[in-house]
Amino acid sequence: MNTKQVKAYGTETAEAPLKNLNIQRRSVAPHDIEIEILYCGICHSDLHATKNEWGGTTYPIVPGHEIVGKVTKVGDYVTKFKVGDLAGIGCIVDSCHECDYCKEGEEQFCEQGSTIVFNSQDKRFGGITYGGFSESIVVDENYVVHIPETLDLASAAPILCAGITVYSPFKHWNIKAGKKVGIIGIGGLGHIAIKIAKAMGAYVTVFTTSNSKAEDAKRLGADEVVLSTDNEQLKAQSKFDMILDTVSAKHDVNAYLNILKVDGALVLVGLPVEQLPVGAFNLVHGRKSFSGSNIGGIRETQEVLDFCAEHNITPDIELINTNQINEAFERLEKSDVKYRFVVDMASLKN
Amino acid sequence: MNTKQVKAYGTETAEAPLKNLNIQRRSVAPHDIEIEILYCGICHSDLHATKNEWGGTTYPIVPGHEIVGKVTKVGDYVTKFKVGDLAGIGCIVDSCHECDYCKEGEEQFCEQGSTIVFNSQDKRFGGITYGGFSESIVVDENYVVHIPETLDLASAAPILCAGITVYSPFKHWNIKAGKKVGIIGIGGLGHIAIKIAKAMGAYVTVFTTSNSKAEDAKRLGADEVVLSTDNEQLKAQSKFDMILDTVSAKHDVNAYLNILKVDGALVLVGLPVEQLPVGAFNLVHGRKSFSGSNIGGIRETQEVLDFCAEHNITPDIELINTNQINEAFERLEKSDVKYRFVVDMASLKN
Repeated sequence: MNTKQVKAYGTETAEAPLKNLNIQRRSVAPHDIEIEILYCGICHSDLHATKNEWGGTTYPIVPGHEIVGKVTKVGDYVTKFKVGDLAGIGCIVDSCHECDYCKEGEEQFCEQGSTIVFNSQDKRFGGITYGGFSESIVVDENYVVHIPETLDLASAAPILCAGITVYSPFKHWNIKAGKKVGIIGIGGLGHIAIKIAKAMGAYVTVFTTSNSKAEDAKRLGADEVVLSTDNEQLKAQSKFDMILDTVSAKHDVNAYLNILKVDGALVLVGLPVEQLPVGAFNLVHGRKSFSGSNIGGIRETQEVLDFCAEHNITPDIELINTNQINEAFERLEKSDVKYRFVVDMASLKN
Repeated sequence: MNTKQVKAYGTETAEAPLKNLNIQRRSVAPHDIEIEILYCGICHSDLHATKNEWGGTTYPIVPGHEIVGKVTKVGDYVTKFKVGDLAGIGCIVDSCHECDYCKEGEEQFCEQGSTIVFNSQDKRFGGITYGGFSESIVVDENYVVHIPETLDLASAAPILCAGITVYSPFKHWNIKAGKKVGIIGIGGLGHIAIKIAKAMGAYVTVFTTSNSKAEDAKRLGADEVVLSTDNEQLKAQSKFDMILDTVSAKHDVNAYLNILKVDGALVLVGLPVEQLPVGAFNLVHGRKSFSGSNIGGIRETQEVLDFCAEHNITPDIELINTNQINEAFERLEKSDVKYRFVVDMASLKN
């Protein structure tokens, strides 16, 4: 297989800061397209994987999975894209194509396991995948989405992970006008969840531990903001159809189960390392569910991009250059970002 | 309000054994029927409430909420029953009649809170309700079900709580032919769950910690039995649509979440006192749910009785007299019953 050397930004060990690296990208296969990467968002998963906090990281690692760029080359059989098109890549870059989930466009559930854009075994071409902190990337066109022209390109990047991660459960749990939605946490996921749930027509209550973020939640569109450290305020809430839990630290979920309506669901999209204790009565009374959701498929990723374009919403971002990525990782650990870092990948070329 | 003294079996304190008591029953109001109680099942909740293990018990308490009897008197406006009819009463004896849940026949979700057959404030007539360990009971006909003639009367009693408690979640989670169902625990709930799930056409795997119960699970109809203490055996399982968790002691639910298929649900009907820790990844990957379910409404209670009659299934019971109730409570604490005690209430009269 022919390969091409491209510039990237990554690290060879868990301890070392990220730096300029050279990696190899494959030549375009018949179904592939090559994309010049313009912008790439930074998600907390990039940080976890880079520092091997979940285990299983293969070094060198090039993180980045919220990729927006322009098509620079297309394989012989490509039909979805032409050179010059805007293109987006999220978490998934390959899957089996054959199981029921893949056929339904729910590649996140692929029975063989989907291939992630970085730090993943590439079952089709071999080697380890490298992510979006790089000049360019080559991906099967079936795992690439179109970026609507009306979206700001840099701001659109986080829709490819943060956006789909909150949009998919809202769709699955049938959020629409007349529904009462809670959102726990105002970070990368929570802030875009507010915008999307509002655009879907729901009544949105935000739960935050931070007084300072309460005002911002209103600006982002929340109908109500509840300080979750105030037990009385929390207990006075009731009858949520769904509460989206974006928190990745240890926290008590029982208080939220209690304020769901009958058949309501508390849906976790954060990934706390510690287990979360659940009281039986809180599930049994009112037939409630504590559920989880993980990104979404390619079809739905296109859908959320089109939805955001239609409703004129994008994540709030802080645009940085590659040489600010290490600092951004440090700030991300302290939740010091409003609300998503996006890297201007042009800075990699200089 | 006119009342009538009837014999009952209960206790005046948490510590004392149950004994013969006299209680007052109201005269039949226009929508009421009076029932001579023939049989009453013993559920673990009777034990918890009698010993005030969940708190909130008002003494004297007369437990019993799996009641089968014969109609002896009907109020002026009663249309559903006539004197001499067989009749069943489960957990719920009243609710608001007016909220959406009551109108839909899901009185267990009544917005005002439903009135339970014992140890519950009677919002309509005042006082505290007394349960089925008694000669007779007076209840609004809307909370009474018909016992199909073909069912063995004593064996039918536990359908009114154990039966509906497992039938309702099976219906809600759409169990039918082609579905793969797991059942954790073979006790009062688990053993009838096996029979009902099989009658619904599902493939049934039973999880038990007890080698001695494995054979019995097969006799009850299980397609497969897995020793849940054997990690390898447990991990080798996969793709359950639903797992019904009937265990009321502390246990690890994560192993069961892991063997659900995408969108699968682990549904708790047991009520462990300790909280159950849940790992985030076990919910998030595969959009799984840890849910709960609590009894069922009156409409569905009639449905499960008719279903059991149609499929010729009843709980396995051990029939006892009232003077054996204290011993039965002791044996119940040690799970020493196959699989439900039912009290022959004729013994109260002697």
